[in-house]
Amino acid sequence: MTRSHEAMANAFIPGKVMLPPETEQLIARRDRLLGPAYRLMYDEPLHFVRGEGAWLIDAAGRRYLDAYNNVTSLGHCHPTVVAAIAEQAATLATNTRYLQEGILNLAERLLATMPQGLDRMMLTCTGSEANDLAFRIANSATGGSGVIVTETAYHGITDAVAQFSPSLGVAVDLGAHVEIIPAPCALTEGEGGFGIAIEAAIARLRRRGIRPAMLIVDTMFTSDGVWPGPTGFLAPAAAAIRQAGGVFVADEVQPGFARTGEAFWGFQRHGVVPDIVTMGKPMGNGYPVAGLAIGADLVEDFGRNARYFNTFGGNSVSCAAAQAVLQVIEDEGLQENADRMGARLVSGLAALSQRHALLSAPRGAGLMIGVEIRRDGGPDRMAAAAIVNGLRREGVLISSCGKDQNVLKIRPPLIIGSAEVDQFIETLDRVLEGLQ
Amino acid sequence: MTRSHEAMANAFIPGKVMLPPETEQLIARRDRLLGPAYRLMYDEPLHFVRGEGAWLIDAAGRRYLDAYNNVTSLGHCHPTVVAAIAEQAATLATNTRYLQEGILNLAERLLATMPQGLDRMMLTCTGSEANDLAFRIANSATGGSGVIVTETAYHGITDAVAQFSPSLGVAVDLGAHVEIIPAPCALTEGEGGFGIAIEAAIARLRRRGIRPAMLIVDTMFTSDGVWPGPTGFLAPAAAAIRQAGGVFVADEVQPGFARTGEAFWGFQRHGVVPDIVTMGKPMGNGYPVAGLAIGADLVEDFGRNARYFNTFGGNSVSCAAAQAVLQVIEDEGLQENADRMGARLVSGLAALSQRHALLSAPRGAGLMIGVEIRRDGGPDRMAAAAIVNGLRREGVLISSCGKDQNVLKIRPPLIIGSAEVDQFIETLDRVLEGLQ
Repeated sequence: MTRSHEAMANAFIPGKVMLPPETEQLIARRDRLLGPAYRLMYDEPLHFVRGEGAWLIDAAGRRYLDAYNNVTSLGHCHPTVVAAIAEQAATLATNTRYLQEGILNLAERLLATMPQGLDRMMLTCTGSEANDLAFRIANSATGGSGVIVTETAYHGITDAVAQFSPSLGVAVDLGAHVEIIPAPCALTEGEGGFGIAIEAAIARLRRRGIRPAMLIVDTMFTSDGVWPGPTGFLAPAAAAIRQAGGVFVADEVQPGFARTGEAFWGFQRHGVVPDIVTMGKPMGNGYPVAGLAIGADLVEDFGRNARYFNTFGGNSVSCAAAQAVLQVIEDEGLQENADRMGARLVSGLAALSQRHALLSAPRGAGLMIGVEIRRDGGPDRMAAAAIVNGLRREGVLISSCGKDQNVLKIRPPLIIGSAEVDQFIETLDRVLEGLQ
Repeated sequence: MTRSHEAMANAFIPGKVMLPPETEQLIARRDRLLGPAYRLMYDEPLHFVRGEGAWLIDAAGRRYLDAYNNVTSLGHCHPTVVAAIAEQAATLATNTRYLQEGILNLAERLLATMPQGLDRMMLTCTGSEANDLAFRIANSATGGSGVIVTETAYHGITDAVAQFSPSLGVAVDLGAHVEIIPAPCALTEGEGGFGIAIEAAIARLRRRGIRPAMLIVDTMFTSDGVWPGPTGFLAPAAAAIRQAGGVFVADEVQPGFARTGEAFWGFQRHGVVPDIVTMGKPMGNGYPVAGLAIGADLVEDFGRNARYFNTFGGNSVSCAAAQAVLQVIEDEGLQENADRMGARLVSGLAALSQRHALLSAPRGAGLMIGVEIRRDGGPDRMAAAAIVNGLRREGVLISSCGKDQNVLKIRPPLIIGSAEVDQFIETLDRVLEGLQ
C-alpha cells in the first residue's frame, strides 16, 4: 500500500534530510502530542511565528514569500479583517438561534455575487462541512446517493466527504456509491468530452442500482493539477448530471472569492449556473467560516424536515470577518489585481518555459496557476519536488499537485504586487538553473 | 411525520403568537436569505446586539440573563479571550502544515487534564467534526461500523454524525449500522443496567452482521434530559463495548471544560477512562475550535494511513483562544465556582419543587442541571414550554430537552454569581406562580 506521505504531494518525509536541532525537537514534540495523522510540508519543515501581507516570517526572522496559502487571500493578518474580528468578538459572539443582522447582511451581500436562482445561503465553519451539507441536501432532494468526482479530487475530511476525495490516497476507501472520472485534461479535447465521461459514470452507477445524487467539482480542478479550460466544458457536464436526476455542485472552496481574476467565482468562467455552490478557505481570511449558496426549491425538503444548526456556523464573529473580506476585495480592487498579477506571473512563467526544458507552458486563471514539470515526454514528480524544495530554500513557498504530483501549484495572495511577482520569477529561474 | 419544529424542543413556531413588526421583518428577511433549515428559539424570537458576562442585550437595550448558552462559558466577550484572539489574529493565523508552538502548548495543557493513556490531541473546528473524526478512527481501529447511542442523543450534523443523532427527529434517518438504547433514567436502577442495555444493542448489531465500532455518549446525557448519576454507571457500559471489540467515546462537547464542577470532564465523575474524548463548544468561548484526545495506539493505524488535515482546525488563533480559556478557568477558579453556584441553584430549585407541584426535584452536576416538569404523574411538555417562554418574557434564558421535551435545561455560564443565581430562582418562582 502507498504510504500516506507518498500519497500527499510535498509531504515532509522523516529522515530524508538532516534537520536543524530546533526543528528536530519541535517535530518530536509534535509527534508526541498530535500523533501520526498530522503531516508537515517540505523536506525541511518551516516554523513560522508571524505573517504580514504576502510574507511569512520564521522563528529566526527569515521572510518567505507565501505564494501558496489560499486561505489568507488578502495577505496575512489584514488589518481590516483583524479589526472586524476583534471588534465583533468584544461585542457579541452568538449563534443562529437568535436573530442577528450581521448574518443577514452577509448573506445578502454574498448572494448578490451569485447568478439568479441561487438565492439562499447556509453557513458552516469549514469547506468540509459545506460539502458534507451539500451531499446531505443532494441526497434529500434527489433521493439518490451516487456521487461523481474527478480522479484526484479533494473535497474535504468528514467521513462522507472523504469517501469522495480520492486525493487522500488509497488508504481512504472511496464509497461504494462513488464513481471517479479522469481530470478534464484528457477529456476536453473532443467536443463535450467531460460531459461524455460523466454520462459513462452515471451508467456505471445505474448498473449497480445507485441513483445519482450529485456531480461535484472544484471548478479549477486544483488538486487534479489545475485545469482552467477551455472555458465552457462544464456546461455539458452539468447538463448530463441533471438529465440523470442529480445536481451539479461547484466546489468553490479553492477558486472562489476573486482568485481567478476573470470572475468572482470559478464556475462563472464556464458560463454555467450550479445547483449548489460551496465555499470556504479565503472566506474569512483565516477565520473559520464556510458555507453554501443554493436555490430555494432545492433546499426546501431538507430544510423543512431535517433542520440545520451549526453552533459556530454563522456565529456573529464569522459573519463580521466574512463581511470585512468582501469589503476589502472590493475596496482594494483585488479581483482586478488577481487578473493583472496573474497575467504577469503567467507571462513570466511562459518566458521561463522557453529557456527551461523541465517547465511546460503555464495554465491558470488569475492567481491560480499550474505548471507541469516534464522530462523525456513524461511527468517528472521528483523534479517537481526538487523545485518546490529549492524554492523553499530560497525563501519562496509553493507546492505541487496532480495525479502524478508533477504540477507546480502556484497561488499567491490576491494582494501580491509586481515586485513580488518578479521576485518569484527570478527565484524560480535561479532554482531551475541550479537543477540543470 | 413529525414536523421538524415539533421535534426540536423550544423551537419558534411561525404564527403561534403575534410578534412586534421589527421581529416579523427580521424573520421574513431571514427566511428569504437563509431558507427553511434554520430554526429560532422561543415563541417570540430574540434579537441580540451585545453580550457581557452572563447577560445578552437585545436591540431595545433589554438585558437577559443567559442561563442557557454553554458556548460562552466564561461569560460573553470575556476580555482575556477577546484579547488573545485579537493579538494572535494580528500576528499569525496559519495552519498545521507548518510548525508552530501554540498548538503544541495547547495540546500539552489539554492532555494534562486527561487520565493516563489519552496522550494524543487532534484539533477540528466543530464538535460535529470531532465526533465525525472519532467515528472514522473507531472504524479504522476496530474494523467495525456499528454505533450505539442513547435514544435522544445529539452528537452533531455531518452526514455520518447525523446518522447517530436521534434527537434530530424522525426526518433524519438513523444509519442501518446504528442501534439506540434508552436514556440511562430507566436503566440505572438495577445493578449494571446501562451495561446490560449495551450488551443487548451489541447482540442486535451482530445479528445483522455488523461489527461494533463504538459506543458514544454525552457523559451528562444532556439532550436525553440530563442524567448525572448514579456516578459509576458508565463503567460497565465501557466494559461491554470493549468486550465486543468496540471503543468507548465520551462526547464532552457539552459537559467538558469544568461545567460539572466536580470534575473538569464529565467522564471523570464516573471513574471511567474513555478510549476517545471529544470536545468543542466552550473550548474557545465562542471561537470555533474543537477536537479530541486519544491514545497513541488507537490512532496509529488511522494516522499513518489516512492522515488528517483540517484547514482551520488547530489554526494559530484557535489555539490562542483555547489556551486563554484554560487560563481563565484556572485563574478565576471557575470549576470551583461551577460547583458552588451549581449547589446554590440546585438548592433553590429543590426549595421551589416543594412549593410548585409541576417541578420535580432537580438533578445535575455543577452548572448542568435538569428539572422535570410533570403533571398527573406524567411528563408535561406544554407546561415546560410555558415555563421556558415565561422565563424568556421575564428576561431569563433557558430551554428544554429530553425525549418528552419536559426537562428544563439549565446551564448558566461558569462565571455566574450568587445574585444572578438568586435572581434566576426568584424569576422562576414568579413564572410558576403565574401558571398555577
